[in-house]
Amino acid sequence: MTSKSKDLTIWCNAKFPPAAMDELVAGLGSHRLLRAPATATNLFAGAPDPLLAESDIALGQPDPEQMIALPRLRWTHLTSAGYTRYDRADLKRALTERGAILTNSSAVYAEPCAEHVLAMMMALARQLPQCQDEQRESRAWKAGEHRARSRLLIGQTALLLGFGAIGRRLAELVEPFRMQVIAIRRHATTGDRHTVQIESTDRVDDLLPIADHVVNLLPANPSTEGFMSASRLARMKPSAIFYNIGRGTTVDRQALLVTLQSRRIAGAYLDVTEPEPLPPEHPLWSAPNCFITPHTAGGHDAEFHRLAGHFLENLGRFERGESLLGRVV
Amino acid sequence: MTSKSKDLTIWCNAKFPPAAMDELVAGLGSHRLLRAPATATNLFAGAPDPLLAESDIALGQPDPEQMIALPRLRWTHLTSAGYTRYDRADLKRALTERGAILTNSSAVYAEPCAEHVLAMMMALARQLPQCQDEQRESRAWKAGEHRARSRLLIGQTALLLGFGAIGRRLAELVEPFRMQVIAIRRHATTGDRHTVQIESTDRVDDLLPIADHVVNLLPANPSTEGFMSASRLARMKPSAIFYNIGRGTTVDRQALLVTLQSRRIAGAYLDVTEPEPLPPEHPLWSAPNCFITPHTAGGHDAEFHRLAGHFLENLGRFERGESLLGRVV
Repeated sequence: MTSKSKDLTIWCNAKFPPAAMDELVAGLGSHRLLRAPATATNLFAGAPDPLLAESDIALGQPDPEQMIALPRLRWTHLTSAGYTRYDRADLKRALTERGAILTNSSAVYAEPCAEHVLAMMMALARQLPQCQDEQRESRAWKAGEHRARSRLLIGQTALLLGFGAIGRRLAELVEPFRMQVIAIRRHATTGDRHTVQIESTDRVDDLLPIADHVVNLLPANPSTEGFMSASRLARMKPSAIFYNIGRGTTVDRQALLVTLQSRRIAGAYLDVTEPEPLPPEHPLWSAPNCFITPHTAGGHDAEFHRLAGHFLENLGRFERGESLLGRVV
Repeated sequence: MTSKSKDLTIWCNAKFPPAAMDELVAGLGSHRLLRAPATATNLFAGAPDPLLAESDIALGQPDPEQMIALPRLRWTHLTSAGYTRYDRADLKRALTERGAILTNSSAVYAEPCAEHVLAMMMALARQLPQCQDEQRESRAWKAGEHRARSRLLIGQTALLLGFGAIGRRLAELVEPFRMQVIAIRRHATTGDRHTVQIESTDRVDDLLPIADHVVNLLPANPSTEGFMSASRLARMKPSAIFYNIGRGTTVDRQALLVTLQSRRIAGAYLDVTEPEPLPPEHPLWSAPNCFITPHTAGGHDAEFHRLAGHFLENLGRFERGESLLGRVV
């Protein structure tokens, strides 16, 4: 801790396992930590909490109304990459007016999420899920069939819906495959990597028919609700695969179900659904060529260690008056 | 076809699907094709065949004894990457003495095999097989458990047993993960890529304990029989995973089974077994954390198209007196 900053009060409602909490506390120096009741996971907002009123910094998932109302709160650091519930004009205005900051932890989640997407792409290209089903059932040695259905990623085309930290890292990971990577953003910009072709949202209907892999990375907000509509799903190639590691609400679930049941596309690999948990009786669980991971894309064994480290890195920057990582507002 | 070479007789016992056979025939020009009874797959040697005696070139999997005996045969092009049954001193001597050539198709199989290995590595790192088992069974949404068990490839260590075309391509594919890649060769040489540390076989016992991923790419031959012995399996980290896309005989199968059953290592992903097909009652099918693909690593939808193209490329080189691709002898 530098001498420039006086001691700060840091409120935290993030659920850190003991080892990560110890790291966090050790890194706080003489700052004061106020521990609020933790949320079950960082997908849920915390309840309003009186302790927040005494705090300079909030870490975790504070209540947005309280963030607006409390003038002392100078910086909120979210323990998630997504910030849907904080993506509101009134909150943004309130923070901006008093010079308060909002940051997220997308830097922590870019690597596992990008690795998760590539894992899904490769598993389906190599028929790993199909072979596993056979291992559990017939144990037939269908080498010829699976070989003929296997595909190479090399030279294929991936269309990324959304292009933030996860998309950029995914583009790096697939570079050795010499894939064509096209990314859709709200506003097309020149890509920071020449290997990615950036296009604006209004081009998505033209691009869906050329993609072998349609990777949905969209956050949940009013403009993305049902973005992958029935008509957009219908524009996908029959051999193409749809991936969702954004949010479940950004897809027309009924249309996706019908698309899979009629085998109109080759498959789907979903890490997010609506609702979550997906009830055991939901038909997506047994739709043909549909594989589901239970919102695990961002997780890894060092997740909380890295979340704590990322916050402490930002705390150092905050103390020194430097620009923060993962700044949202 | 250039005017330099007279018409050649090409014997073929490879099982090409009709479209690939058409491509092959179209590319042969005025050369004569003799079609022998095809082998079921290129894993099996063909029977001795009288037509081979009339041929200048053999394509497929000819009988090794016949290759030794027939002086007219100037070039044999194997439709496989492996060449175990042709890896004999008497055959090598006979071919060398009469200036005959042996080539393989490893160039065709490097890409799918390397992609298959990475698919296996990523699937296990991201808990995809475990999530699939749950999808088929409880449909419990065990997000927390799977997240905590997920691992990142970034920064991990892979030990490759064998370092030929597949290993080199795998090293390229994992470059963005900044993994430590160590490869074992019979004779250590300076790596052609600075990203791979090449070591000789006698260092394997020292290196096994540091690897997160032990990737067996060894061919079958007397010196590799049972290479991954009980004592070598015992040197692996408890968190490490064993992959086999070499040949089933290069592992002590009983030791591997016991290692998995006692959960001494974190898992195995096998594309080759001994025997193949692996009988449905074989205990490896149901060993904990053991996943099996039925020798599909080299396959892909364009396999035979690429095999035909690779042979025709070499045929052009043969006609022009240039050096051939995939030369073994």
